Amino acid sequence: MILFQSDYLEGCHPRILDALRDTNLEQTLGYGEDPHCTRAAEMIRYVFDAPDAQVHFLVGGTQANATVISSLLRPWQGVVCAESGHISVHETGAVEHSGHKVLALPARDGKITARQVLNALEAHHNDFSREHMVQPGMVYISFPTELGTLYTRQELEELHQVCRDWEIPLFVDGARLGYGLEASGCTFLPKDLPCLCDVFYIGGTKQGALFGEAVVFCDPSLARDFRYNIKQNGGMLAKGRLLGIQFETLMNEGLYFQLSRHADRMADRVRAAFRAKGFPFLVENTTNQVFPILPHDAIRRLADEFGFERWQGVDEERDAVRFCTSWATPERAVAALESAVRKL
Amino acid sequence: MILFQSDYLEGCHPRILDALRDTNLEQTLGYGEDPHCTRAAEMIRYVFDAPDAQVHFLVGGTQANATVISSLLRPWQGVVCAESGHISVHETGAVEHSGHKVLALPARDGKITARQVLNALEAHHNDFSREHMVQPGMVYISFPTELGTLYTRQELEELHQVCRDWEIPLFVDGARLGYGLEASGCTFLPKDLPCLCDVFYIGGTKQGALFGEAVVFCDPSLARDFRYNIKQNGGMLAKGRLLGIQFETLMNEGLYFQLSRHADRMADRVRAAFRAKGFPFLVENTTNQVFPILPHDAIRRLADEFGFERWQGVDEERDAVRFCTSWATPERAVAALESAVRKL
Amino acid sequence: MILFQSDYLEGCHPRILDALRDTNLEQTLGYGEDPHCTRAAEMIRYVFDAPDAQVHFLVGGTQANATVISSLLRPWQGVVCAESGHISVHETGAVEHSGHKVLALPARDGKITARQVLNALEAHHNDFSREHMVQPGMVYISFPTELGTLYTRQELEELHQVCRDWEIPLFVDGARLGYGLEASGCTFLPKDLPCLCDVFYIGGTKQGALFGEAVVFCDPSLARDFRYNIKQNGGMLAKGRLLGIQFETLMNEGLYFQLSRHADRMADRVRAAFRAKGFPFLVENTTNQVFPILPHDAIRRLADEFGFERWQGVDEERDAVRFCTSWATPERAVAALESAVRKL
Amino acid sequence: MILFQSDYLEGCHPRILDALRDTNLEQTLGYGEDPHCTRAAEMIRYVFDAPDAQVHFLVGGTQANATVISSLLRPWQGVVCAESGHISVHETGAVEHSGHKVLALPARDGKITARQVLNALEAHHNDFSREHMVQPGMVYISFPTELGTLYTRQELEELHQVCRDWEIPLFVDGARLGYGLEASGCTFLPKDLPCLCDVFYIGGTKQGALFGEAVVFCDPSLARDFRYNIKQNGGMLAKGRLLGIQFETLMNEGLYFQLSRHADRMADRVRAAFRAKGFPFLVENTTNQVFPILPHDAIRRLADEFGFERWQGVDEERDAVRFCTSWATPERAVAALESAVRKL
Repeated sequence: MILFQSDYLEGCHPRILDALRDTNLEQTLGYGEDPHCTRAAEMIRYVFDAPDAQVHFLVGGTQANATVISSLLRPWQGVVCAESGHISVHETGAVEHSGHKVLALPARDGKITARQVLNALEAHHNDFSREHMVQPGMVYISFPTELGTLYTRQELEELHQVCRDWEIPLFVDGARLGYGLEASGCTFLPKDLPCLCDVFYIGGTKQGALFGEAVVFCDPSLARDFRYNIKQNGGMLAKGRLLGIQFETLMNEGLYFQLSRHADRMADRVRAAFRAKGFPFLVENTTNQVFPILPHDAIRRLADEFGFERWQGVDEERDAVRFCTSWATPERAVAALESAVRKL
Repeated sequence: MILFQSDYLEGCHPRILDALRDTNLEQTLGYGEDPHCTRAAEMIRYVFDAPDAQVHFLVGGTQANATVISSLLRPWQGVVCAESGHISVHETGAVEHSGHKVLALPARDGKITARQVLNALEAHHNDFSREHMVQPGMVYISFPTELGTLYTRQELEELHQVCRDWEIPLFVDGARLGYGLEASGCTFLPKDLPCLCDVFYIGGTKQGALFGEAVVFCDPSLARDFRYNIKQNGGMLAKGRLLGIQFETLMNEGLYFQLSRHADRMADRVRAAFRAKGFPFLVENTTNQVFPILPHDAIRRLADEFGFERWQGVDEERDAVRFCTSWATPERAVAALESAVRKL
Repeated sequence: MILFQSDYLEGCHPRILDALRDTNLEQTLGYGEDPHCTRAAEMIRYVFDAPDAQVHFLVGGTQANATVISSLLRPWQGVVCAESGHISVHETGAVEHSGHKVLALPARDGKITARQVLNALEAHHNDFSREHMVQPGMVYISFPTELGTLYTRQELEELHQVCRDWEIPLFVDGARLGYGLEASGCTFLPKDLPCLCDVFYIGGTKQGALFGEAVVFCDPSLARDFRYNIKQNGGMLAKGRLLGIQFETLMNEGLYFQLSRHADRMADRVRAAFRAKGFPFLVENTTNQVFPILPHDAIRRLADEFGFERWQGVDEERDAVRFCTSWATPERAVAALESAVRKL
Repeated sequence: MILFQSDYLEGCHPRILDALRDTNLEQTLGYGEDPHCTRAAEMIRYVFDAPDAQVHFLVGGTQANATVISSLLRPWQGVVCAESGHISVHETGAVEHSGHKVLALPARDGKITARQVLNALEAHHNDFSREHMVQPGMVYISFPTELGTLYTRQELEELHQVCRDWEIPLFVDGARLGYGLEASGCTFLPKDLPCLCDVFYIGGTKQGALFGEAVVFCDPSLARDFRYNIKQNGGMLAKGRLLGIQFETLMNEGLYFQLSRHADRMADRVRAAFRAKGFPFLVENTTNQVFPILPHDAIRRLADEFGFERWQGVDEERDAVRFCTSWATPERAVAALESAVRKL
């Protein structure tokens, strides 16, 4: 049985295990105040060309989202996002738990537009009973989105411009950031990202690390006292160096991007296999998630050999399903899947 | 420089790294629903003789405390604890962040008594304006305490009896549980603990794991929907198996207790060294933290060779300091310290 | 200028002012523990035929909603409601402030159906990743709705049955309860309501009182420690008797229902006036809010003489507007409006 | 039976009832955006000589405290106050409910000193693990305190200076503000207060109103979006004018201060009566609360005729009790009490 359910099915890239072993008996102070975290932060600032950025390491995505968002909002503010945004649907209300409403906008292929955000902001501030409504206080998007689609450089510029005009921050959830940046069709480089938003995070968990997300405050003034907030939200790892060591390894010699590229190429092959058989897709994308629409019978046959996720019903005879590749997906697994698809 | 600042200075026991390597390319589903977590939970139930207990794995102590506490309290309730309790002083208000007051009682050597808790409960419920005050809804203690002291079996029985009489749960923070259970003078066995409280956790972070705490609900009815709460509090590790693998390893062949014993014996030697020179202690204890009271000059001299923590001022000439041993403390480090103390 | 913007434009029914004056120098203990509150609660239990109900008096609707909801939910639960529900749109996120997501369902004429709620509950509990989503923990509806429409007895029975089947409470926001109960077409009596839900409140603010809402827990076990929660939410009025006195007066000799009837009859006339001129309505209803769809020119002309609210745009030439009547609307104001409408 | 239990035993000053009656059928828009609130705010700015202040009206003290505090703190900050402060003991954890720890300092006669606050701030910021502790983010004091004592002008200046030096706001709970300002020994005038703190409130509930507290932001930049926060905290009264009308009446021709003076003079007589009989006091003060220490027998005898509060035990034979006077206390009630005390 070969599993394609998600991009966090395996442990981590072997170089990370090596690094953990090599550093295992070093004695370092805790909570991220160690040389590994310092060096990993420097590497991230270099790779993303953001010399002034503040970098903080957290354990997981839900934690990173809730901690960043609660740090940036005032109590009566909410966070604008796509209705399909991870914070809106799959984090058990972690944002609401911190007291803030998620202001979900209708999304197309997982994305929201600058125009939608502008309309929401104008509608709020022009409403004479606005004080009876939650004030939009920041914008959250995912890159790539939960449907594996990408914002273009221009779309991000427009979103960021609206945010700047209204003086609210733009936050990019990068749980799968590398898979986006290395996808065919991505219209900007890692070093461009810090100019396109105010804070983002570099996903490690789904991208070759055991766990870990690196939050990058492009505008360091937004990060004031952020470490207090990490601790309060239960996200300050005692052996913080584990995060530093992992990101040092991933940033070293471009490993993070190589692994991302691999996953995207594997996904391209999966996509091509389904396309060759004429299956449509729930959404067109170029990252590591593939959403073919398949008849129930085809689903049953593939399910004998492969693990994958039923995503949503489409009509009486067909469901959209999801196949995820990752840094760890072996060529032979994809070849097996290609072969199975061909036989459908 | 040999560091004794804390018990989380190093990585993890090598067997854990081996286990991570051996399992690295296994494909498992996420979020703790994998065979390793299942097996680790079974081993814990066996070792602690709690066949009905529900076991959940969290990443860190602050997270475990906030998640358990918010799960057990109603909004208007607070948690009774010692004023020196970790939740009261060193978790950046994580409990208050979830909406609950910490009801701190004066502590002696880090401990509170059944009598104190009873008085607090009676005082609350006899007060005609009790509805204007936070209702005590549970009791939190640490075993060992933040000062390395131990509750006796009888003290725990009495605390638990008061809690049962008033129908509120007793929660034991076991961030250093093994160091307590293996200390000389501990008056009960691991298998006794589930009868002495309603929920406790087995600390991994300070006890040989990279990270991880195993929360054990002795009364499984208290754990209803607890996984929702873990997720909402940002504590559900995507690759949950990392926790399972670590606790499998620690529970296997008593490794957890061996490592604890080692740390306690090393601490006994440190204690003996200071005692032999006539230094008094801030508190008498038998676990892995040692709190000698030293003149400033002695502190300066030791600080050239060793890392340790200045804990609190005692008088104009002396401070109490803290030396921690751990599963990782080598004999030679303790020998070096013994030698340095002898020369004071 | 005659104002129809809302049903809280004036002070209160004169009998309430009389009662306040008559009792002004009585000395009573505070916080609702006075004879007036006791008597008002008894009258409510009698009028609504709910001898076991627990009655609590709060100052306003947002406060009542947030206090009841936070009292009934566990941290990881949310409240199901119509997307047009007051808690979802016009309470500045008070529910989210207390940590809970509002789970909004599409509404028709402001109402949700038992089928929708059942589907939401089933969808949640059948989802294998339900622990990553907010658990539906209660249902909130408004009677009448924010659009002035009514649930029928059968609709309420069906909703309540679903709630009972899934063991979650049904909460009825009765900010305008009387206007609903006295409307033509209401299919049940005050005394039926306690069997149709688990908790509801009797709105005073919009129904003849200066302020005040009476929360009625039909199932008194749900009200355990509710007074703590009132206090914590800043809703415990020091001179609680002010609420008791007002509800005593409103419940006395059916005043509450007379005032409601008056407002509904005035609204019927307003509705008839617009209908006679052929104007359509945003929604058909029989309570004290009227939502005609008017051309911009008609709106401008009416706005010279009358205050009313522009509710929403309908097309390029027309908006839906809202006229509210209340216990205080004089016949002559309605006559003036009728005359103006006739001239359009 | 004459009651001295509190200063909110009666309704309100008759002029307020008159004003409510005179304005009863005025039609005004809701939520504090009416001419009465505007005018009351202007009167307050004039009386307190604070032309730039922003004034907001809330219903009660707990609500005012929680709303102001949650508005001024970041999530990881707490509020410094006396351990006897109302927010620390008698508001059912409303501050914690909004996510913030109350950082209680030992108090002497209900007061804290600039030195204590400075020490707390320095201790926090000098602590290398400060990020693991709640950051002091504002200071809360009560004037008069819960024990009826007063801060001198110099004490306030010193407190305010420390707050300014550390860039945190000073908030004065003035639930009984008038009773403080009119007390013999008060060392400053109403118009001085806005220079001595950053935000304060003028208590109405205990000072002649039916209910209501006027929050005054001396520094209006702190009040940004405060109305959103009022609404979110359930404190935005629909018929906001009720608050405006009451404060208009109280500010008119100095009524607020006359009523305060009356209560203080009545308390002076009560104090003198006990002093004349040689009874000591729990605390020396000059405001409307009197705390004599009485033998149990004397307490029993007085309790036949008068209502008062047993405050705390003092020794085996004596308790401290509390007698409150108010704007409503008639001379004859005090005369009766004087006579009864004389007979003890």
